[in-house]
Amino acid sequence: MPIRFEIIAQDKTTRARAGLLHTPHGVVETPVFMPVGTGGTVKGMRQEELEALAVQILLANTYHLYLRPGHELIRDAGGLHRFMAWPRPILTDSGGFQVMSLKSLGRVTEDGIWFRSHLDGSKHFLSPERAVEIQLALGADIIMTLDECVEYPASHQTLERAVSLTTRWAERSKQAFARGSGPEPLATHPESVTPNPPSQIPRSSLFGIVQGGTDKELRRQSAEALMGLDFEGYALGGLSVGEPKSEMYDVAEFTADLLPRERPRYMMGVGTPEDLLEGVARGIDLFDCVMPTRNARNACAFTSEGKVILKNVRWARDERPLDPACGCAVCRRYSRAYLRHLFVTGEMLGAILATHHNLHFYLDTMRKIRQSLLFGEFAEFHRKVRMQP
Amino acid sequence: MPIRFEIIAQDKTTRARAGLLHTPHGVVETPVFMPVGTGGTVKGMRQEELEALAVQILLANTYHLYLRPGHELIRDAGGLHRFMAWPRPILTDSGGFQVMSLKSLGRVTEDGIWFRSHLDGSKHFLSPERAVEIQLALGADIIMTLDECVEYPASHQTLERAVSLTTRWAERSKQAFARGSGPEPLATHPESVTPNPPSQIPRSSLFGIVQGGTDKELRRQSAEALMGLDFEGYALGGLSVGEPKSEMYDVAEFTADLLPRERPRYMMGVGTPEDLLEGVARGIDLFDCVMPTRNARNACAFTSEGKVILKNVRWARDERPLDPACGCAVCRRYSRAYLRHLFVTGEMLGAILATHHNLHFYLDTMRKIRQSLLFGEFAEFHRKVRMQP
Repeated sequence: MPIRFEIIAQDKTTRARAGLLHTPHGVVETPVFMPVGTGGTVKGMRQEELEALAVQILLANTYHLYLRPGHELIRDAGGLHRFMAWPRPILTDSGGFQVMSLKSLGRVTEDGIWFRSHLDGSKHFLSPERAVEIQLALGADIIMTLDECVEYPASHQTLERAVSLTTRWAERSKQAFARGSGPEPLATHPESVTPNPPSQIPRSSLFGIVQGGTDKELRRQSAEALMGLDFEGYALGGLSVGEPKSEMYDVAEFTADLLPRERPRYMMGVGTPEDLLEGVARGIDLFDCVMPTRNARNACAFTSEGKVILKNVRWARDERPLDPACGCAVCRRYSRAYLRHLFVTGEMLGAILATHHNLHFYLDTMRKIRQSLLFGEFAEFHRKVRMQP
Repeated sequence: MPIRFEIIAQDKTTRARAGLLHTPHGVVETPVFMPVGTGGTVKGMRQEELEALAVQILLANTYHLYLRPGHELIRDAGGLHRFMAWPRPILTDSGGFQVMSLKSLGRVTEDGIWFRSHLDGSKHFLSPERAVEIQLALGADIIMTLDECVEYPASHQTLERAVSLTTRWAERSKQAFARGSGPEPLATHPESVTPNPPSQIPRSSLFGIVQGGTDKELRRQSAEALMGLDFEGYALGGLSVGEPKSEMYDVAEFTADLLPRERPRYMMGVGTPEDLLEGVARGIDLFDCVMPTRNARNACAFTSEGKVILKNVRWARDERPLDPACGCAVCRRYSRAYLRHLFVTGEMLGAILATHHNLHFYLDTMRKIRQSLLFGEFAEFHRKVRMQP
């Protein structure tokens, strides 16, 4: 089994737990935040810097990599790790979310999703099998099944239909994964005595995605159906799509409780620093979100004192670091005044430095959460952070 | 005297020399290439990375910093070094070149240059005195006099007028510099017993700029007039403005020969890697050019095998480094295929990595030149490089 998950600490009063996720590219300490490297790069960050920030696992978007440079090119280059020179673990999504969020461009059928490229309008088809095939070519450590993600609010009928389709797709994904990553392809060359070169050995693990919106009964149906298929990890999809925070937390807790304790749980596309803490408290192990990186490019920084809008004229002569409580390379060296100047003049370095800081803030938040778990202080940490103004 | 120049090696067959330029912010090994940090940042590069690349001195543009964030803001922040968190030497230009290259926006009079901001059309006036005042506020180690730079080709009359105006402006600059950096301002507060805080101690040195186009007699007049004013260094202006290479080299050699041996010589805005070598052979010590950084952003890399156009489809599956002979961090880690992907998809990281490589290429070229001087092998190095296809 390519991945192995080990729980090393469990909070007594909440569902929070700390673990080790062993992958073919190294061990990930959970709970973990995964920066988003959409097209094989976390915008504005070198891989060296991500390593220096102690990023443990990256997320990459199958949709974007499929369109450019193409999954076959990446497969031929030895997989995504090698192509982008990132030696640590990678998780890829199925591509379905991007395809469906480009509304007018996608059409969902029983077979899969027809969509048009946002780049040139060309027509493409993404089926559960195809999503697995593309992701196996990319060669991420963790790959995701194709699912149907529904907007909030949605009718019960819509949600039910999506859960049922997601279940059928999960089954097809599982079968495609077994074929694609199993011994069958070797059987076509029975005379071959050379083992596959390392880059072709399938080393991915497949996660299923629970849907059901804010409907607990549907979440239960979805979770149980997926568990019947026995995935190596389970994701909570269809959250943070417009529902109130309290509902999101409630559904996350309800759904996490349904899932097997010994498998990693991944809350997709979530969220704010607060969401990380609340998600962990509800038993989530993995998170990803574009917020720290996208906000950074829009001159919005996360700090211990809340969000800082970097273009604000009040920082024009402010010689303090962006976050006086932060020890990142940016806060140790550069002033708010300089960062503001960079954003006001449209210099690339503004986005570069703000991205570095925001990622540090997210990763550091998660490190503190994990430390509190290891030392049996999570409940206290949780209470303290919640009580902050 | 804030700067001191020391020649430590002199080639026997050419005018090339190696030296040490002692400045208030450290010692610069010459000949040296200065990356251009237009608005207080070398586009796409962190200051940490510039340090790691062993950048010894940066150039910043007075015009841009005067408009945004303003020289007074930078002065109040403790000067440009502190504002941009760059502890090593800085040279600023006078602003005149930018003002005049924005053609329709500038008007030259005896007093100075009227110009409109390229940002909002607001009207500004730059006199020799004002250029010194602004640069003293920025606090660079080396500052430049305001000069009139003429395009190529120009009539003898135009060139003569520009030389004569540049000479009068140089004299006014020298006087303004003496007032601005001398003891006079202190005299207005005779009761003060507190010494000026370090950031206000004038530590700049003023360089004069020789003009005269490709007219040697005018170059001689210009150089002699400036030498009469005794500058701490001399620049060759008005080169690389369209004249043939052979003329540029010829004029550089002729002009460098006129200048005092013991003062640093700076060829402004030049040039290609070949120009650095040819400039050094003619006795030049300092160079600056936007070429490595600007070309990088336009997906053009300098390599030991010539220029590489990074968007070229032939690199789509090329797993070799950008320059197999290069030991920079980019060539050690990333493939041409990945760099091409970044540029084709418009990712920031493309410009970041190409800028890093190109700067490394320029700095490394200059290091090799300097090494050859220290070991008495410059002539051989020069001959070898020239003989390459």
